[in-house]
Amino acid sequence: MYITETNIRIHYALTDQMGFVYYGNYAQFYEIGRTEAIRKLGYTYKDIEAMGIIMPVVETQCSFIRPAKYDDLITVKTFLQTLPKEHSITFNTEIFNEANKLLNKGTTTLFFLEAHTMKKINMPKALEEKLIRFFERALN
Amino acid sequence: MYITETNIRIHYALTDQMGFVYYGNYAQFYEIGRTEAIRKLGYTYKDIEAMGIIMPVVETQCSFIRPAKYDDLITVKTFLQTLPKEHSITFNTEIFNEANKLLNKGTTTLFFLEAHTMKKINMPKALEEKLIRFFERALN
Amino acid sequence: MYITETNIRIHYALTDQMGFVYYGNYAQFYEIGRTEAIRKLGYTYKDIEAMGIIMPVVETQCSFIRPAKYDDLITVKTFLQTLPKEHSITFNTEIFNEANKLLNKGTTTLFFLEAHTMKKINMPKALEEKLIRFFERALN
Amino acid sequence: MYITETNIRIHYALTDQMGFVYYGNYAQFYEIGRTEAIRKLGYTYKDIEAMGIIMPVVETQCSFIRPAKYDDLITVKTFLQTLPKEHSITFNTEIFNEANKLLNKGTTTLFFLEAHTMKKINMPKALEEKLIRFFERALN
Repeated sequence: MYITETNIRIHYALTDQMGFVYYGNYAQFYEIGRTEAIRKLGYTYKDIEAMGIIMPVVETQCSFIRPAKYDDLITVKTFLQTLPKEHSITFNTEIFNEANKLLNKGTTTLFFLEAHTMKKINMPKALEEKLIRFFERALN
Repeated sequence: MYITETNIRIHYALTDQMGFVYYGNYAQFYEIGRTEAIRKLGYTYKDIEAMGIIMPVVETQCSFIRPAKYDDLITVKTFLQTLPKEHSITFNTEIFNEANKLLNKGTTTLFFLEAHTMKKINMPKALEEKLIRFFERALN
Repeated sequence: MYITETNIRIHYALTDQMGFVYYGNYAQFYEIGRTEAIRKLGYTYKDIEAMGIIMPVVETQCSFIRPAKYDDLITVKTFLQTLPKEHSITFNTEIFNEANKLLNKGTTTLFFLEAHTMKKINMPKALEEKLIRFFERALN
Repeated sequence: MYITETNIRIHYALTDQMGFVYYGNYAQFYEIGRTEAIRKLGYTYKDIEAMGIIMPVVETQCSFIRPAKYDDLITVKTFLQTLPKEHSITFNTEIFNEANKLLNKGTTTLFFLEAHTMKKINMPKALEEKLIRFFERALN
């Protein structure tokens, strides 16, 4: 398993008149978590796009347990529980507040596509090589 | 079953550099679909809040089938498949483009909460009375 | 002068915890107003991009007079006061609520750029031909 | 003069299909800059709201010089050039990329309002006391 954490401060634009973070904005937190997970491998999603690969989201699921609020410093935990196979990659996300209470959790599945044909392709070898050491024990 | 439709024109702010609508923005389309579904009952979500009730989203699931693009005029179909029981209401949403191709589908579950206590409460009677005629056959 | 109007319903995502529309979201209303102004000429901004031209915003100014609120049906009035010269076009925008109270007004200046070189170019002739009849009296 | 800096990483949600940050999103960067400027005084905007004061934006002006792009780590410089008088406060903002090129600059004016009456009030004394030392030379 590969786990990373990143922090996000909730600014005013993300709130709604209920006084909470608007439910549609959690997708951005999930995205930031995934991006930082890739960056911590010594790689960036920008590099992936520069290789002519895009990664559209094909499926999301999201449970809202407690509301995030203005000025909260949330912790986004991003988990890759299995080494991606073929063209599909699934991230799990959990979001905590400063009191370490679970606010939100969900999963996101993305595909690797060749940008100019929009055809499914396998995960780039360069990314797989960065990831494989986190899953070696599971392979034995 | 209660079904309504509403149209949304995709403006530039909703796109991302992939050239598609950013995945997190579909939550807004689902919201607009739900709001217009309630309005077509002769009622508004604003009325519900004025009664001291809020309806936070507690669960969403969303499948991205084809991308929506800039300037698309999408049709958001919002379905209430069962009459809500107690404090929970679940909407199904399907989004189509002008060629009537399915772009996206998902479900959203919201709770009815008393705003000042944040306690779960039953759906307001006034809303139930508007909805019940769409489900009477199913009850017989 | 060329004037058009379009209506926008304020959805929840646009509000913030002050109970008003977040100040940064007016830029979207201005954009929608400009887009519909172009569409009413029998032309779309999408057509302009298909010609290899992009129109980035280079300058905005915005005065917030009264707050827009959730579920308001606002009217966006978009004015082109002078026929654009060379590579620059300036729109004036005024936003009204249902009681016809002025909520917001501002100006936005965009450039016409050739997308693949990012060089300034003149307004496309096809667009100028659509616009010129609104300014002919001023030219005499 | 009071000057602070904060950094923001551009995530995908902020981009548009031009491949740049959508022009409406700079208002969020300005907001984050202002919030962090207040926090560095040992105070938060959340504290101000807890005192029953809100600070709506009444005027903005923004010049777009170079586009911010996906994954850029931008620096937001926030300047308070004069000690606020009465109910009004004006921030200047400049945004730089990692190569220290100026991307964007602008000003934002906000009012101090009593939240429950929406009446203009003077800047809270507690905030003024934090700020005054940055302007003392100017007062002599």
